[in-house]
Amino acid sequence: MMRIIFLLSLLFALSNASVQDFCVANLKRAETPAGYQCIRPMHVKASDFVFSGLGTPGNTTNIISAAVTPGFVGQFPALNGLGLSTARLDLAPKGVIPMHTHPGASEVLFVLDGSITAGFVSSANAVYLQTLKPGQVMVFPQGLLHFQINQGKTPAAAFVTFSSANPGLQILDFALFANNLPTDLVVGTTFLDAATVKKLKGVLGGTG
Amino acid sequence: MMRIIFLLSLLFALSNASVQDFCVANLKRAETPAGYQCIRPMHVKASDFVFSGLGTPGNTTNIISAAVTPGFVGQFPALNGLGLSTARLDLAPKGVIPMHTHPGASEVLFVLDGSITAGFVSSANAVYLQTLKPGQVMVFPQGLLHFQINQGKTPAAAFVTFSSANPGLQILDFALFANNLPTDLVVGTTFLDAATVKKLKGVLGGTG
Amino acid sequence: MMRIIFLLSLLFALSNASVQDFCVANLKRAETPAGYQCIRPMHVKASDFVFSGLGTPGNTTNIISAAVTPGFVGQFPALNGLGLSTARLDLAPKGVIPMHTHPGASEVLFVLDGSITAGFVSSANAVYLQTLKPGQVMVFPQGLLHFQINQGKTPAAAFVTFSSANPGLQILDFALFANNLPTDLVVGTTFLDAATVKKLKGVLGGTG
Amino acid sequence: MMRIIFLLSLLFALSNASVQDFCVANLKRAETPAGYQCIRPMHVKASDFVFSGLGTPGNTTNIISAAVTPGFVGQFPALNGLGLSTARLDLAPKGVIPMHTHPGASEVLFVLDGSITAGFVSSANAVYLQTLKPGQVMVFPQGLLHFQINQGKTPAAAFVTFSSANPGLQILDFALFANNLPTDLVVGTTFLDAATVKKLKGVLGGTG
Amino acid sequence: MMRIIFLLSLLFALSNASVQDFCVANLKRAETPAGYQCIRPMHVKASDFVFSGLGTPGNTTNIISAAVTPGFVGQFPALNGLGLSTARLDLAPKGVIPMHTHPGASEVLFVLDGSITAGFVSSANAVYLQTLKPGQVMVFPQGLLHFQINQGKTPAAAFVTFSSANPGLQILDFALFANNLPTDLVVGTTFLDAATVKKLKGVLGGTG
Amino acid sequence: MMRIIFLLSLLFALSNASVQDFCVANLKRAETPAGYQCIRPMHVKASDFVFSGLGTPGNTTNIISAAVTPGFVGQFPALNGLGLSTARLDLAPKGVIPMHTHPGASEVLFVLDGSITAGFVSSANAVYLQTLKPGQVMVFPQGLLHFQINQGKTPAAAFVTFSSANPGLQILDFALFANNLPTDLVVGTTFLDAATVKKLKGVLGGTG
Repeated sequence: MMRIIFLLSLLFALSNASVQDFCVANLKRAETPAGYQCIRPMHVKASDFVFSGLGTPGNTTNIISAAVTPGFVGQFPALNGLGLSTARLDLAPKGVIPMHTHPGASEVLFVLDGSITAGFVSSANAVYLQTLKPGQVMVFPQGLLHFQINQGKTPAAAFVTFSSANPGLQILDFALFANNLPTDLVVGTTFLDAATVKKLKGVLGGTG
Repeated sequence: MMRIIFLLSLLFALSNASVQDFCVANLKRAETPAGYQCIRPMHVKASDFVFSGLGTPGNTTNIISAAVTPGFVGQFPALNGLGLSTARLDLAPKGVIPMHTHPGASEVLFVLDGSITAGFVSSANAVYLQTLKPGQVMVFPQGLLHFQINQGKTPAAAFVTFSSANPGLQILDFALFANNLPTDLVVGTTFLDAATVKKLKGVLGGTG
Repeated sequence: MMRIIFLLSLLFALSNASVQDFCVANLKRAETPAGYQCIRPMHVKASDFVFSGLGTPGNTTNIISAAVTPGFVGQFPALNGLGLSTARLDLAPKGVIPMHTHPGASEVLFVLDGSITAGFVSSANAVYLQTLKPGQVMVFPQGLLHFQINQGKTPAAAFVTFSSANPGLQILDFALFANNLPTDLVVGTTFLDAATVKKLKGVLGGTG
Repeated sequence: MMRIIFLLSLLFALSNASVQDFCVANLKRAETPAGYQCIRPMHVKASDFVFSGLGTPGNTTNIISAAVTPGFVGQFPALNGLGLSTARLDLAPKGVIPMHTHPGASEVLFVLDGSITAGFVSSANAVYLQTLKPGQVMVFPQGLLHFQINQGKTPAAAFVTFSSANPGLQILDFALFANNLPTDLVVGTTFLDAATVKKLKGVLGGTG
Repeated sequence: MMRIIFLLSLLFALSNASVQDFCVANLKRAETPAGYQCIRPMHVKASDFVFSGLGTPGNTTNIISAAVTPGFVGQFPALNGLGLSTARLDLAPKGVIPMHTHPGASEVLFVLDGSITAGFVSSANAVYLQTLKPGQVMVFPQGLLHFQINQGKTPAAAFVTFSSANPGLQILDFALFANNLPTDLVVGTTFLDAATVKKLKGVLGGTG
Repeated sequence: MMRIIFLLSLLFALSNASVQDFCVANLKRAETPAGYQCIRPMHVKASDFVFSGLGTPGNTTNIISAAVTPGFVGQFPALNGLGLSTARLDLAPKGVIPMHTHPGASEVLFVLDGSITAGFVSSANAVYLQTLKPGQVMVFPQGLLHFQINQGKTPAAAFVTFSSANPGLQILDFALFANNLPTDLVVGTTFLDAATVKKLKGVLGGTG
């Protein structure tokens, strides 16, 4: 009994010394450059480390016949500070995750079902294009334009992971056409013609 | 035509400026604290960014009824410097990935098939234990002891990702019993009795 | 004299201990994820820390009426490992630095001459657009699409700095149209029409 | 006098520009992934940079005949953000700091008194074992299982430093036996027999 | 119309996932080791990314005939977390930015006007000294003593950038002579004579 | 026996996956910004993790009555990549470690013997001065001017640790007076008078 008491007092002292194995995000408080403030460890439950939002296919009944379901720190607060986040991609036949970048992370994609043709373009403008089957993994380096497309005849799905709890996602068409960036500036900086820009702004809800 | 020439000369100048979007590992050269030296970009092919080693279940006909198939930088050199690596877990019924740590990375696990009971222990000795079904994701903070076990009746599998190209993997039983660490030191530092230590050393091929 | 000898022996001992205040790149050796290997300090000269390539305007007699002159680690090896690089922008009237990203760095721009209209688009597709005059500074967060344009009547110039020795530079039009990415994939992932894609591929030297 | 005024106004301007040489932790506020929030510099005293808790031996009258006295950020708030923390180890003859890891830091150990036998096990299960005398230093790489033991006849002591303000400390026996992790899961993931597990749970206050 | 609705709902979902492209500092809240807490993105304006304080020369009518105008995170909150900050140097003829260090950043200097003689000293006590003309860039590695001086006959100016939002600035003479560090300690640790120390303390407002 | 074979084959597979728990420096090969290239793990011995150079007092029979004995990566190659280094300070009565900085690391000092008066100056020119006795620890934030002095009557010694394998060491007097930095530039940038500068250059072996 004496031994237990001695040991537990040692345990207590050491536990006080051990902090921040993890830092589950308090999404209601201000962020910092390194992520969200932490919930106190005493309020963290085992279930906080589990995210169930990626188990079912996203709705692909839309213009891109595809869906991105994020499991970033905003959806899965336990990722805060751990340098990882997740998402699920679903692509109906002919579905496409349009050209996009993640400004803050590299990405690995694991094909769950179907066939996915994926590619990225380097700073040197070289194209790295591959068609993947289930179980194959592809890596996309940080910040480079990339896309995924289903050229097969059955639905495709993938589980993706990022090297940041908050990788960001900049979809090219939305960045160019779904806001109030003036048409003449889009034209001037992309060499697209004004008619094309205005048409896509119309489709995507942009103005200007 | 003139315009093309001008543009291409601009292109050329700028391409020279752009380096190291990626750094595919040259596994034959010495490592550095930040990873392997890079293959020259001109020798990098699209297929280098794809890893096909995780598409089929590992062999679970072994003492743990389970298999870990790594897709770390050693197997998938394009991961070098990108802060990510991958692996596949297969667990037959009653299979177990024994208690272990990754000294250099946090981990996210995505259940592909079956049911996986997973847990980790914090520095404060709290246990975070969950039983996961397909599509669920669990995160394991860096460096903490954790395990996965299949308590279901069908095979289980998971795709896991780490926050480092080279997360390390220290399996507790191998660290304690599969080397020449003297029995008396194992006994003295773990409070296990000598008979237990010697028995496990016997099973795992350890000496001392 | 004795004192000097003692001190110099101390000096010698301490100098041995001091390494890598800087790591001037050896551009002929393989890179690593953290940058180039270092030239030996004894071969480093004071002039290695100076770069003279940004003192004169770049040639703006081209299709974009603008020029980017990089002073990245490839041109200015002393930047290696110091987390900084530089460039000069020159824009004739109506000149434009087309929509682009730097996958590996944030950027600050200091206007030297003329007027520069600059903008970036966030992951949330919000537009941050400003017209700058000489002496003003604008910051562009890492990895986001941005551009600079001269809407004034006189030449404009800027000195820019990046938060990495090797920030990368991905110019949107070059990434989409100046390589062999198949037209149908460009169409499918950008929602541009095939005629537009083929026209721009023609101008920019792309194929496919 | 004029000169002083000019200089002091310069001084004032520049001092405003200089912040966060240090960030003494405010332990009462929420943590972030990068550490605690800072106390305002005006409230920081010279004595905040001194920690006096390691000057006397810890109490070794316990089951391990040893003591770990931490000087982590929780005890020594000035360490916050500086990438360092400290501790003192005391080992009576036959004392042992049991097998443990620091999930978030590497460690250097400087022997103050007596003889310390220390070892760590690598991911490749290799054992690195050494017996140290006063003045010797040993380094333990991040996240690997290690231990210290006094095989001499006199008390031993060491000053240790970690590469993080908050290295964490996971003691193997406490992680396995001093909490509610079910016996069958401990058995299943460690290959220890149930009797051994139950006995150690009994000694260490664990349940399940 | 249906398509727009589908797309916008996708857009909405994805925007929720994207956070912290930037983290404009809330200077009224406590700092953290990684910088200030962020203003909410909805309150961030395009003009927050522009700093106008460097457009006009600083007042050089002072003892050093020079001025440093900082554009650090304290003056330009959008820099928070982006790893960059800025300043302007103005040096009248014979003006000098006295010997100083930036404890937290490397620096690049771009000469705007005039001639600047700049130098730094390495840990090995080697001197790297250069005289720069407009358009030349010099880099100063982190933490090393350096200075700038105008040996020409016309005013000189430079735009400088640092590899941290908060580089710090420790001016040697102020550190030694403009505070209450006792004269005998200054003498003892610098080998200057007491008369020199007292004289400079007098000029710079120091005591002790 | 079968089980052992299965387990060992698993062990073999996993060991291949585990790399770079440590990266013992190969001092003969070129450095990188992240440190030295690694010796192959098979050539690393247990004794590589031990450094014996700090066990005996340095020779204090010199002008400063003090000695700094470094245990940086150059002396102790196992520190490479682990973010830590060490040194020993010895100060005879009236001994002084002169005013200096470590450009690349914070420092913790543990007093072994005697009394040490230590101080540092912040960017805001505030002085943090303390007199320490054996067992006390003081932390010195990265890059700031600091010093240690023995104002007691008995020898003093300290063990210090840095937050980098290669912290650098810039001793103020050596940087100013022990090289060929021209006297007029030293005078101009420090406000010391020429006679003082020339005298100290004479003592310390400087020229110019």
